[in-house]
Amino acid sequence: MGLTSAHKEILDKAVAALHSRAFHAQYPEHPSPKIYGETADADGRATFKAHLGKNFEELKQEGESGWIGEEESPYFADKLNVKYPAFSKEVLLERAEKGFHAWRKVSAADRAAVLIDSLERFSKRFFENAYATMHTTGQGYMMAFQASGPHAADRALEAVAAGYEELSRFPERQTWDKPMGKYNLVLNKEWRAVPKGIGLVIGCSTFPTWNSVPGVYADLITGNSVLVKPHPGAILPMAIVVAEIRNAMRDAGFDADACQLVVDTPDAPVAKELAEDKNVKLIDFTGNSEFGSYLETLPKAVFTEKTGVNSIILDSVDNLDKAIQNITFSVALYSGQMCTAPQNFFIPEGGVKTPDGIVSFDEVAKKFADFTTGLVDNPKAGPFVLGAVQNINTCNRAQSAAGDLGGKVWLETRSIENPMFKTARTQTPTVIELSSMEKEKFSQELFGPIALLIKTKDTKESVALAKELAEQQGAISCGAYTTDPEMKEYIADEMSLAATPVSFNLTGGIYVNQNAAFSDYHVTGGNPAGNASFTNPDYVNRRFTWVGMRELA
Amino acid sequence: MGLTSAHKEILDKAVAALHSRAFHAQYPEHPSPKIYGETADADGRATFKAHLGKNFEELKQEGESGWIGEEESPYFADKLNVKYPAFSKEVLLERAEKGFHAWRKVSAADRAAVLIDSLERFSKRFFENAYATMHTTGQGYMMAFQASGPHAADRALEAVAAGYEELSRFPERQTWDKPMGKYNLVLNKEWRAVPKGIGLVIGCSTFPTWNSVPGVYADLITGNSVLVKPHPGAILPMAIVVAEIRNAMRDAGFDADACQLVVDTPDAPVAKELAEDKNVKLIDFTGNSEFGSYLETLPKAVFTEKTGVNSIILDSVDNLDKAIQNITFSVALYSGQMCTAPQNFFIPEGGVKTPDGIVSFDEVAKKFADFTTGLVDNPKAGPFVLGAVQNINTCNRAQSAAGDLGGKVWLETRSIENPMFKTARTQTPTVIELSSMEKEKFSQELFGPIALLIKTKDTKESVALAKELAEQQGAISCGAYTTDPEMKEYIADEMSLAATPVSFNLTGGIYVNQNAAFSDYHVTGGNPAGNASFTNPDYVNRRFTWVGMRELA
Repeated sequence: MGLTSAHKEILDKAVAALHSRAFHAQYPEHPSPKIYGETADADGRATFKAHLGKNFEELKQEGESGWIGEEESPYFADKLNVKYPAFSKEVLLERAEKGFHAWRKVSAADRAAVLIDSLERFSKRFFENAYATMHTTGQGYMMAFQASGPHAADRALEAVAAGYEELSRFPERQTWDKPMGKYNLVLNKEWRAVPKGIGLVIGCSTFPTWNSVPGVYADLITGNSVLVKPHPGAILPMAIVVAEIRNAMRDAGFDADACQLVVDTPDAPVAKELAEDKNVKLIDFTGNSEFGSYLETLPKAVFTEKTGVNSIILDSVDNLDKAIQNITFSVALYSGQMCTAPQNFFIPEGGVKTPDGIVSFDEVAKKFADFTTGLVDNPKAGPFVLGAVQNINTCNRAQSAAGDLGGKVWLETRSIENPMFKTARTQTPTVIELSSMEKEKFSQELFGPIALLIKTKDTKESVALAKELAEQQGAISCGAYTTDPEMKEYIADEMSLAATPVSFNLTGGIYVNQNAAFSDYHVTGGNPAGNASFTNPDYVNRRFTWVGMRELA
Repeated sequence: MGLTSAHKEILDKAVAALHSRAFHAQYPEHPSPKIYGETADADGRATFKAHLGKNFEELKQEGESGWIGEEESPYFADKLNVKYPAFSKEVLLERAEKGFHAWRKVSAADRAAVLIDSLERFSKRFFENAYATMHTTGQGYMMAFQASGPHAADRALEAVAAGYEELSRFPERQTWDKPMGKYNLVLNKEWRAVPKGIGLVIGCSTFPTWNSVPGVYADLITGNSVLVKPHPGAILPMAIVVAEIRNAMRDAGFDADACQLVVDTPDAPVAKELAEDKNVKLIDFTGNSEFGSYLETLPKAVFTEKTGVNSIILDSVDNLDKAIQNITFSVALYSGQMCTAPQNFFIPEGGVKTPDGIVSFDEVAKKFADFTTGLVDNPKAGPFVLGAVQNINTCNRAQSAAGDLGGKVWLETRSIENPMFKTARTQTPTVIELSSMEKEKFSQELFGPIALLIKTKDTKESVALAKELAEQQGAISCGAYTTDPEMKEYIADEMSLAATPVSFNLTGGIYVNQNAAFSDYHVTGGNPAGNASFTNPDYVNRRFTWVGMRELA
């Protein structure tokens, strides 16, 4: 086959975007009927509903040992009863090995063509995927559409572009002509980008496609085969993606077993056993730090996004209301279940400088609580911003935080009613004050809608604590509010040493939680929050080996 | 300062060479008076001799706790009595930390300028360095000049070029302008290439500069500071390099403590303690697999070249004499003390195909022994090709190999006399026949002048064994002789899966041992022989982290 001109244009634009790092989106993020068609939403919802209670037959992975799947909707408070084919480890690995040896011989251009084709196919299912994502992760509709659909597809395309570029960066062949005085020594040389082998991508329950497709597409563009193992709580969104990758491979005449879905259940997890198998050479993981750090010790190419403790540093602001509005939204968004959500808000005991004078710690804290209440109680915003809670443990953690931590509670957590799903599992943010002395309390990740307002001596202490936590516990995001250029550079420099990106003075419709494909590196790979980054050169380079061949000309 | 036009030209050429992978040498490899000056050799020898029995004062690392150094010449059979300043770990790390924070703020262009300046200074000392290398490693004069001088400087320049390119690959700043329907969301973004911190480069006793300068220059171009710890048996060559790096830094107005020499003695090694220190973030290591594999488990950026078992596969040849001449030279060169030297020669029991018919295993083996004897007994070649043996254990290993392995001995090892140094420690290659069944005997590295001729069922078995050993024990080089295009591709494909480069059908003045800067990747990083490669993008990318900053425009 080879790249069609349409695919080539998509790829070229993506490679250019990687380098310009200006805004680029191949897939429109707005679920607009004008873009996606008048019936797209209704059709997608119907297609999603048609999966319920059925076997997911689209993968065409034959010879299953049974059908399994225990996803539950945080909105329905019920099982989806979608079942997926199950296979023994031996069958999966045997097929993956066979798929690898076929796929590795496909040219990089053909691989790119197939993968872009798969994204084009996926893009026709963004609405179906949005509902699948809502009813596994608990995300609100808009986030489920954007993050799991176009944003995920853009991050997948970014990985394809990065991989394609690295593979094309050095010549395949060259004549090496060395003057030796009386004669020239001439060698014909050749370099092969040799893929590592079988990859395993282990997904998480909150962002099943966004966090998994970069690894899947990075493995595949560089010629590896891949086993895609979603979290048992959020399978369907990735099942759709894998089905379309397999369709694209099959239609192009290639062995679809280069990409297989692996499904497990909470009672019989398979990730560890697969990860430890000697034939699995690459692992991508999103999830808890304990298992992620264990995986990093395996002698393989391992790419992790684990957990971190994200900070907001409040020093001085132009408009305090806008700042607090912005950061309280960041906590409420998907009930604090984003890996980029802030947890620790460092506020000087002397208060925050504003154009109207210093606003005291207590006033800031009260505003934080009031804005949060205003948001969650706004019937047009609250339920949709909060979404539902994927895991009951997250609710329990938010409910017990005040008791466990013992600080002053500025806002209690509670449930609100979702107008569309009466059974939705909701939990609003709790806001708790702590002192900078209580490091043991705020130095752990408290996943979920929990905001800790930490009273510091001054901004220098705020920065020192944010940096120390990032270095020791990891951090994926950091927000800072300061109107002082020197302080701004100080924060940027200190946090950069902890490999933590900083968003300064965000207000309005952009949040510290958001990382855009082709521009924002997601996770830097430089602190304990993860060893890999969407998508820097390292993210694709570590998936293959340059090997040279030479002979006399 | 900034890049002068001369430095810029060197850098630009080097970056272009990295990508063309055609022949490029910034520093001429021939020790010709026409190139380097009529008195260069004599001056270099005199300067080397002037170091003997003295303190090496050029580093200007002040406040030493004493002067140490126990290098011995394998030619003199005596100590050099050159002494270097010793420092506590605390002093070294404190200075390295201070040096880091100054050096990381130097622009990439200025760093490149300083580093290229240091190489230009070093190039004026290639002859002095050649004698320093001879009398620590035992290398012959020509190898000592080339490998430790121009070839090392080229590999250092290659690392500078690779690092400079990676640092320059993405914009420092960009406006991100996202259409939001009714308005545009505009962010100013900035990306910083943040160095990891303090690096440690641990050298080996056989190639003190060639194997160490890539890591040193890669650390420095990417803004890290570096502690350079040569092997206690081969300090002087790197002391010269470090002195010139420090001179270049100092003359450019920078803190020279970004690069410090660390010296130890065999009785009081310091590498492990430094490597484990939490402030050391990067480690480069060349040496034994046991310590290298241990270092790889540390949670740092670790770059290793360990040991491997290198194979030659004999299938069919155009000219058997030329082939055997070539591979016996590869074993004899520096008495088999190159990490790229072949050890296992896989020969089918049915013999090797030639245009004159099949030559039997025994005939090939006899020819192997005879050519070796011819080479080592040639007074104009033998002593200079063999050089001297760095470590007495290598002599012992060669001497006991026949007894330990128990195979048919086609050639005994012995000493020969070096006409210039009567006390030189020499050891000629031993040639031992084994069966392919005796895998436990040939699956370990037998460092030194030991050639194992392994009788296989056929070439397929030869390839399978070479591949298996490369995958399990590591391999840095592989040679293959075949006139069959299908077999050639089979070998290339199989060995590439074991991440092992293959040199096909080498004859004449090019050997499997040789890896050229700007063209041959040295070690691939894809098998147990090492996890890093001179110089692929990964080699520099892993030394810094991309961190983004952003704010509303």
